[in-house]
Amino acid sequence: MDGTGAPLQCLAGVKVLDLTQFEAGPTSTEALAWLGAEVVKVENPKGGEPGRTSFAGPTGSPDSYYFFEFNANKKSVTVNLKSERGLALVKDMARHADVMVENMAPGTIERIGLGYDVISAINPGIIYCQIKGFGEGSPYEKNLAFDMIAQAAGGTMSITGEPDGPPIRPGPSLGDTGTGMVMAISILGALYERRATGRGRRLQVAMQDAMLHYMRFAFQTQAVLGRAAPRNSTRSNTAPSGIFPCAPGGSNDWIYVFARQTDHWHRLLKLLGREDAIGDPRYETAQARGEHVEEVNAMVAEWTRQRDKHEAMRLIGAAGVPAGAVLDTMELMNEPSFTERGILQVAQHSSGPFKMPSWPVRFDGAPPKLEPAPLLGQHSAEVFGDWLGMSKSDVEALRKEGVI
Amino acid sequence: MDGTGAPLQCLAGVKVLDLTQFEAGPTSTEALAWLGAEVVKVENPKGGEPGRTSFAGPTGSPDSYYFFEFNANKKSVTVNLKSERGLALVKDMARHADVMVENMAPGTIERIGLGYDVISAINPGIIYCQIKGFGEGSPYEKNLAFDMIAQAAGGTMSITGEPDGPPIRPGPSLGDTGTGMVMAISILGALYERRATGRGRRLQVAMQDAMLHYMRFAFQTQAVLGRAAPRNSTRSNTAPSGIFPCAPGGSNDWIYVFARQTDHWHRLLKLLGREDAIGDPRYETAQARGEHVEEVNAMVAEWTRQRDKHEAMRLIGAAGVPAGAVLDTMELMNEPSFTERGILQVAQHSSGPFKMPSWPVRFDGAPPKLEPAPLLGQHSAEVFGDWLGMSKSDVEALRKEGVI
Repeated sequence: MDGTGAPLQCLAGVKVLDLTQFEAGPTSTEALAWLGAEVVKVENPKGGEPGRTSFAGPTGSPDSYYFFEFNANKKSVTVNLKSERGLALVKDMARHADVMVENMAPGTIERIGLGYDVISAINPGIIYCQIKGFGEGSPYEKNLAFDMIAQAAGGTMSITGEPDGPPIRPGPSLGDTGTGMVMAISILGALYERRATGRGRRLQVAMQDAMLHYMRFAFQTQAVLGRAAPRNSTRSNTAPSGIFPCAPGGSNDWIYVFARQTDHWHRLLKLLGREDAIGDPRYETAQARGEHVEEVNAMVAEWTRQRDKHEAMRLIGAAGVPAGAVLDTMELMNEPSFTERGILQVAQHSSGPFKMPSWPVRFDGAPPKLEPAPLLGQHSAEVFGDWLGMSKSDVEALRKEGVI
Repeated sequence: MDGTGAPLQCLAGVKVLDLTQFEAGPTSTEALAWLGAEVVKVENPKGGEPGRTSFAGPTGSPDSYYFFEFNANKKSVTVNLKSERGLALVKDMARHADVMVENMAPGTIERIGLGYDVISAINPGIIYCQIKGFGEGSPYEKNLAFDMIAQAAGGTMSITGEPDGPPIRPGPSLGDTGTGMVMAISILGALYERRATGRGRRLQVAMQDAMLHYMRFAFQTQAVLGRAAPRNSTRSNTAPSGIFPCAPGGSNDWIYVFARQTDHWHRLLKLLGREDAIGDPRYETAQARGEHVEEVNAMVAEWTRQRDKHEAMRLIGAAGVPAGAVLDTMELMNEPSFTERGILQVAQHSSGPFKMPSWPVRFDGAPPKLEPAPLLGQHSAEVFGDWLGMSKSDVEALRKEGVI
């Protein structure tokens, strides 16, 4: 069974001029590509955007796994932005584009002559989008940033870790992909508006600012406590709520069990064979369980330790109690239902097949079809022809002159 | 200075029937509300959706801070879904809606008679959206889920923590808000398509599946290593890359410094007053620094320990080296530039002002204006009038009969 749908055509006809690199920018345009926009990466003829080669890839591949992940369903053209004709070519593309996105270091896009003032004069209806580490007007607006810098200065590290331990960087690359998602939403809002009004927009997001959006739960915690939100450990004083050890005791042999509600607690006690504790005043309310957290947790752990996490999840879940085994990337990759449902799909790259997460939302039953990330310059002739009316020999001449 | 813009009108005229609760659902519709859609929460007349009261709020407020955060810029009507007339009322609303979103427990929306088959028969052009913990076709499709369950079973916990420690739940509520964001993107894609084609869509996302989207960096790590991605500590063996202690040594007095590139390393050495180490073969390449990680980190820590994190960030950033102080929620809340730039805004609730993060993307220089989350049923008369042509006395009669 193959759960993949056809390529989506939701954004059919939308042209995206993609000057992004690494992850925060590419994830925003990749979301548009999943939805059917024509996303054209403009890349340096010498090696392409740095994400292609900054990480390892399959044997014989010019491109990294990293590049595969963040550039699915896109096209690629090469342009030498240091040549005058190359720059003119990109401006010509901007004239035909609906959206332009960039996430270069602060000041770079303006310095090379493709800043908002230039592009919006050429195409007043364009949606011009910039992703930076820090916002315009921030004391750090000129600073470089990567995911971990955004996660430090954006607060997500301060709320991650054990209560008495140091801050921990969350594993997901929220500073990058999380920022890409709020930019994609904003672009789509502007596109919807533009279809009615023809109006262009200047969109800007900072990775630091975007982190606040994903930690609003912590801001409510702060409002309740009247002090900074503490680190959010897997253990809390509502019991039982946290991770419990499973057999055979490997580093990810844990299960999260959340039975804060008393009805869930009763269901759990039945499963544990501890009906005797139903009604025991030491455990009967959430507050009482919080006061006896060590005993409560010990009752749960005694049971979980005797089972592997998959069995424990199946049994606890079937009992009507929220529970989730801690799954690692390999277990997720090898879980058949992800492939059957199209949540994981295989892209056929020139170097061979590569299985990866697809867009996680199903449209009429299936996620959109995964198409492989483009080779460097793979679509130069096609895009310069379609967008700018160039012939194959025009394109060949530009290539010989080192413009593309 | 006030960096807030006007309310956005990008989605002017778009009607969203919002049957969501807690966070994963409400964040998806709140994104649409920021962009100018008319988002109408349909709530139980007895207390409203559980997010209103499951957490603490300001003195005298019927609603929690939690509810404020995830329901900005929306409207609220009350409907008793257990009454036949209430159910008919919601179906009438569905007839006029462009989008309907729900995230009830598995099977509930169908059981109450508002499932996809029913609603799409009434309004074939509707975009019908469901958010669940686990996907249809998953072995756990009937299981309950909350953020932490999605973060366990979706893999994000397995990649968070110290290398030798247990899995840690990332502090940001990625299982909820992260899922809401990919649903919002999909709704916007479907809306764009619908404007051209009139076509409705059924959209479904599972919180577990959505987590894979935010940890694709870890999947590339797995592809490179050939084994499950390890926990992603703040320390790694590229040096210097990690958190370093600052004065005066409080729990969040740390700074992340990332100087993996050798040119960044040289800039950092100059700042540290260690020009003597430039060119030293023990530190001159990324690989060499990785082999001498303890010495390299000690050089950096010796300097950071003597400075507070703000000064350290200013100095290291100005030297052209990526660095981010670990900021906590209170420090972010009190940072004036967030308020000046409109990234934090104040909502005027009936219980008083409440400052919170707004939509983090700026449109033509400013984020959209924050409007307070609605009181329960605040817009019943307005919405039933606008959408269904009811008079005030019609609405009053429904209220008296307990339908709304």
